Amino acid sequence: MAKTGARRATLATIAEAAGVSLPTVSKVLNGKDDVAADTRARIRNLFEEHNYVPVGTRRTSNKALVDLVFSALDSPWAVEIIRGVVESGLDVVVSSMTNAPRRLRWAESLVKERRAGALVVTSELTSADRRILQRAQIPLVVIDPVDLPDPDLPSVGATNWGGGLSATEHLIELGHRRIGVIGGPPGFLCSRARIDGYRTALERAEVAFDADLVRHGDFHHEGGYRRAFELLELPERPTAIFAGSDEQALGTVEAARVSGLSVPADLSVVGFDDLPVARWSSPPLTTVRQPLAEMGQHAGRMLAELIADNPLNSHRVELATQLTVRSSTAPPA
Amino acid sequence: MAKTGARRATLATIAEAAGVSLPTVSKVLNGKDDVAADTRARIRNLFEEHNYVPVGTRRTSNKALVDLVFSALDSPWAVEIIRGVVESGLDVVVSSMTNAPRRLRWAESLVKERRAGALVVTSELTSADRRILQRAQIPLVVIDPVDLPDPDLPSVGATNWGGGLSATEHLIELGHRRIGVIGGPPGFLCSRARIDGYRTALERAEVAFDADLVRHGDFHHEGGYRRAFELLELPERPTAIFAGSDEQALGTVEAARVSGLSVPADLSVVGFDDLPVARWSSPPLTTVRQPLAEMGQHAGRMLAELIADNPLNSHRVELATQLTVRSSTAPPA
Repeated sequence: MAKTGARRATLATIAEAAGVSLPTVSKVLNGKDDVAADTRARIRNLFEEHNYVPVGTRRTSNKALVDLVFSALDSPWAVEIIRGVVESGLDVVVSSMTNAPRRLRWAESLVKERRAGALVVTSELTSADRRILQRAQIPLVVIDPVDLPDPDLPSVGATNWGGGLSATEHLIELGHRRIGVIGGPPGFLCSRARIDGYRTALERAEVAFDADLVRHGDFHHEGGYRRAFELLELPERPTAIFAGSDEQALGTVEAARVSGLSVPADLSVVGFDDLPVARWSSPPLTTVRQPLAEMGQHAGRMLAELIADNPLNSHRVELATQLTVRSSTAPPA
Repeated sequence: MAKTGARRATLATIAEAAGVSLPTVSKVLNGKDDVAADTRARIRNLFEEHNYVPVGTRRTSNKALVDLVFSALDSPWAVEIIRGVVESGLDVVVSSMTNAPRRLRWAESLVKERRAGALVVTSELTSADRRILQRAQIPLVVIDPVDLPDPDLPSVGATNWGGGLSATEHLIELGHRRIGVIGGPPGFLCSRARIDGYRTALERAEVAFDADLVRHGDFHHEGGYRRAFELLELPERPTAIFAGSDEQALGTVEAARVSGLSVPADLSVVGFDDLPVARWSSPPLTTVRQPLAEMGQHAGRMLAELIADNPLNSHRVELATQLTVRSSTAPPA
């Protein structure tokens, strides 16, 4: 027995005790036969004496492990989802599609590591990746799919259309009539749903729709900044902008500042997501809360059901968004 | 053989095909003997026919798994470190100390799951937790320790003192002489190191130190906001504040806005961390970059060495911080 609290025996400890080199110890450990029999025996005895545990055998557990796969780990958005999934009680290996080892497809590396399931946060789920997981019988749940998913594919999203509607209705209620909107990439259905909510709010209030006031960014800061500049340079500039994401809203606030406009006195701005940064913005952002942590938690629970071979109540769940009013919106001047 | 692309067989599929209840199938799967022999045989055949893979056996892999443990998953800070660790090539289970299952200590749950190693990002590493990991021979690396670590304990930090020095020297070079500083909790040595760097910069420039200009927050937005207000209410208010963290810097910018002061015209603000939000702030923050992703990557590599029983070059590594000048600092009015 090793002494409790004793330093862990390493290969170097064994080599020193045996009076041989590290490679020799390593050869014995790996069952190579080019080491003299008596040396081999002496080293094997030392392994036992020091209670050496080879690294490869240190891991076995029965708890199901799942992968949580992001397109890229580059946004504060990710930590909200990770927290939610961790709270669902699953053991979660976090990875990024750009980091699959040795150029394996990420789905192949999941199969190789024999994961019990996969949670995927991406706009880039290919049918090839789906097929790989399906063949390996690894259940899959998609979080916030940007394209309308195959009805067979379990997914958790948010009410994007309703969020776009409530953001725009808030601005109309404040008295705005000339309202710009900045969506994400036009191919993303979540972006189209937010913009459709905007259109419906205008129609219900009998405010004319002006295609010039609709722009498409990339959901990131830079896109918001550029598109807001375009909107602020229009001959008749908007008095309010629904920016489609918090990052784009922060870009819009900065475009206003650089243009000499004050938020909200000269321009009202509404975001989408309600990341922690929305509270930290100056002024704090009015935004549509997307319950990212709850979405992660819900997706984790769905995956646990699939792993346990239980049927799902519903394959497609949309959690409610909610308008959070802070200080970046006010009546027009 | 199951058909390629066929839906995965569930216990329900088997029960339906056998014409028995789900609990009966479950009993056979779990080797219980209170099922009639012929029923048992029929169900076993169906398991084979449908190529049913019991959940418990779906996972075995030889790749070392490590845990990355945060005190709490509540900051955009976390995603930077996660990205770095993932880039180090380790398979990383992300968890939070507040989420250890069934009230186990987090260290106990690591032992239970037989992890190959642990990366810990926390100010709350107790000697009890360390002892638990040590007994189980699970190597440990600490990221950004807030207390000076035991020299035996491998850790990766950043040059906090140097960061405080360069932030303050930048403000002095701009012409500021009345410079406030907001640290984190006084017990955190990383905070004391930043403030000591501030003091040394003042001394080198022969600017008198004024204890009234030193405040302690919590490294979060709220703390920065409150302490900045106190500083701005001083009879002779500072013309610049080194805010100790990006979150506190954003709180300081908001305190200035609410006080009717413009950044940087009336007040210069410097952060610490250089999170993505520093770029998104309006105005974009001048801040001290702490290489969080690189710290995570370096810690991951150190842990991989420890798992492979290789000696470390150094147990304590500090990566360099660097001043990043943006638009929240300017000469005093």
